[in-house]
Amino acid sequence: MVELGDGVASRPYGNPSEHEASVVRRNIPWLTANTTTSVSFTPINALHGIITPNGLCFERHHAGIAEIEPSAHRLMINGLVDHPLVFTVDDLMRFPREDRVYFLECAANSGMEWKGAQMNAVQFTHGMIHNVMYTGIPLRLLLEEAGVKTAGKWVLAEGADAVKMARSIPMEKALNDCLVAFAMNGEALRPEQGYPLRLVVPGFEGSMWVKWLRRLEVGDKPWHMREETTRYTDLLGDGTSRRFTFEMDAKSVITSPAPENPVLHGAGPTVLTGLAWSGRGTIPRVDVTLDGGINWNAARMSGPSFDKSLHRFHYEFNWDGQPLLLQSRAHDSTGYVQPSKDALRAVRGLNSVYHNNGIQTWEVSTDGEVSNVEIT
Amino acid sequence: MVELGDGVASRPYGNPSEHEASVVRRNIPWLTANTTTSVSFTPINALHGIITPNGLCFERHHAGIAEIEPSAHRLMINGLVDHPLVFTVDDLMRFPREDRVYFLECAANSGMEWKGAQMNAVQFTHGMIHNVMYTGIPLRLLLEEAGVKTAGKWVLAEGADAVKMARSIPMEKALNDCLVAFAMNGEALRPEQGYPLRLVVPGFEGSMWVKWLRRLEVGDKPWHMREETTRYTDLLGDGTSRRFTFEMDAKSVITSPAPENPVLHGAGPTVLTGLAWSGRGTIPRVDVTLDGGINWNAARMSGPSFDKSLHRFHYEFNWDGQPLLLQSRAHDSTGYVQPSKDALRAVRGLNSVYHNNGIQTWEVSTDGEVSNVEIT
Repeated sequence: MVELGDGVASRPYGNPSEHEASVVRRNIPWLTANTTTSVSFTPINALHGIITPNGLCFERHHAGIAEIEPSAHRLMINGLVDHPLVFTVDDLMRFPREDRVYFLECAANSGMEWKGAQMNAVQFTHGMIHNVMYTGIPLRLLLEEAGVKTAGKWVLAEGADAVKMARSIPMEKALNDCLVAFAMNGEALRPEQGYPLRLVVPGFEGSMWVKWLRRLEVGDKPWHMREETTRYTDLLGDGTSRRFTFEMDAKSVITSPAPENPVLHGAGPTVLTGLAWSGRGTIPRVDVTLDGGINWNAARMSGPSFDKSLHRFHYEFNWDGQPLLLQSRAHDSTGYVQPSKDALRAVRGLNSVYHNNGIQTWEVSTDGEVSNVEIT
Repeated sequence: MVELGDGVASRPYGNPSEHEASVVRRNIPWLTANTTTSVSFTPINALHGIITPNGLCFERHHAGIAEIEPSAHRLMINGLVDHPLVFTVDDLMRFPREDRVYFLECAANSGMEWKGAQMNAVQFTHGMIHNVMYTGIPLRLLLEEAGVKTAGKWVLAEGADAVKMARSIPMEKALNDCLVAFAMNGEALRPEQGYPLRLVVPGFEGSMWVKWLRRLEVGDKPWHMREETTRYTDLLGDGTSRRFTFEMDAKSVITSPAPENPVLHGAGPTVLTGLAWSGRGTIPRVDVTLDGGINWNAARMSGPSFDKSLHRFHYEFNWDGQPLLLQSRAHDSTGYVQPSKDALRAVRGLNSVYHNNGIQTWEVSTDGEVSNVEIT
């Protein structure tokens, strides 16, 4: 018989050192009207490797965080199916599960930078992203259990939050690599990440990864919900909108040096590091420049390369103490190359908020301070 | 200028749902004399995938948890080197770093099972293990900076805890894949895991992964420290001891069903899942049996396969409601196959505490309850 101890010297559920108290999610008070609809940014400036600890994963919610008692939760599948179904969470545990690492990026990540260098912190320019290992049931298996009718071409995913957050997912994607996830980085989903169930839509914009998932409706066309019409669309220069731009384009950013990570050691051996990702595949290559794009150098990719996951790159150089203009440029496995902000503006105009994957520039001064700047 | 928000609706550093309060590390009060020397077990019964969340990583300490202010910490390299060196933590940040996933297993994991089925909980039979992504500097680079003399064949790694925990590492290993790690799963090491620096010795027994690392001494032979003579050795039947048995042999365990995870749903589709690992490579294959070894079936490997990392396996079956005898058997990339406990006992006798990698058996009764049993 096992006696359970309560005298562990380390806490039963541990937390970081008190010396790491600055490594936390932060919000920007003026960015949303109130905390009922809010966003917290991942401190990517202080992170390493490619796994985001659950306690530091950025989150955006549109009507508060739903508090759900898992034994009371249900997932319904209805609409154009042969057998409408309602699952308990325990029911779902009888289906085969998968374990996969994916990034989740908000479509609005870097949105404030469309108009030029705005935020002097990489946590705020690029921190609406995280990357964890999910465990979940392939959505395909649940749809097969319900039996999708031939006319079924779209799936509406609906959450149990106060606003019933809902997004339309193309059937082709739903049957491909989506998961109904119940765990992240080994443990149950965090409350702010959709506990007990969230949809994982690999490579697609974050608002489609519906949290507190309670209903999947199969239909023959998209639903044109609020969050895919007035929001998460790109207003172009000619007054029309790009819509259903689901896949996140390849992107990268240098996380150190960065505004929060000045080069305090002076000239000499210096480590540059950053993150790169693509909603369309892997990142086989990242280039970095120290001189604003005159010379580009291949970064060293480090750690695992997963499909639709963050990738870590490093570049070691001997700093001569002179000013630097740092940029990174991601290449994804489709051959796509991350564009400049100006190249994006030429196509999309200046009204956009979402889907800014342009190259970011950091200026390093002779004293090692780092600033968000824009060069043309 | 950035205004930092303090009104985030989710906590700046988040924690699990209150409904997950049972998913915590636990100790066994009678296992150690007091909490100055203690061990907390990872709740592998409740985890998924292969990443262990930092807050749930098992830890063993021999003289309390050292509290270190990182700016005051130093790492010395001395002994048979051309240039004895002392590094601050900031100095180390100027070296190239690597990002890699490794398991850490205590040599005493499953030690209580040598004498037969003892602990009715997989958290306690196999929970002295965790698996995270480390970021650190290859030890090789630091030793090269110091210049190892030709006579240097071993490295003593010493911690800054009250007992100055120290272990002898063969130079060949030190120059191969060891890391001086400063981060785990993206964030700084946790205090109980050696903050701010720990040695990572991939595939080798956990006590060699010296925490709160403060000194590396190069010598021409091992030091025969307490933790490699009276402890972490295997007393054989003939009264001699196996020593310096560094590499952890291939092993696996079913984490569900398990004593903490009874099969409550009755007959029908059932998911069996577990973990497998080897200190010598990857795990290309795990077999599972439902009938105590009469029939073996290939499990489905899921998620990434990294060298010297946990691997996740699943096996889905249709339970007929009759009693089951569940076992798993790992094959590693060297061709080694996990042995039965009896095969280990035949070679090592009954005095051992450490290095039990024998096959574990769970008995499932008709009501779905699961017990730790031994079959011969």
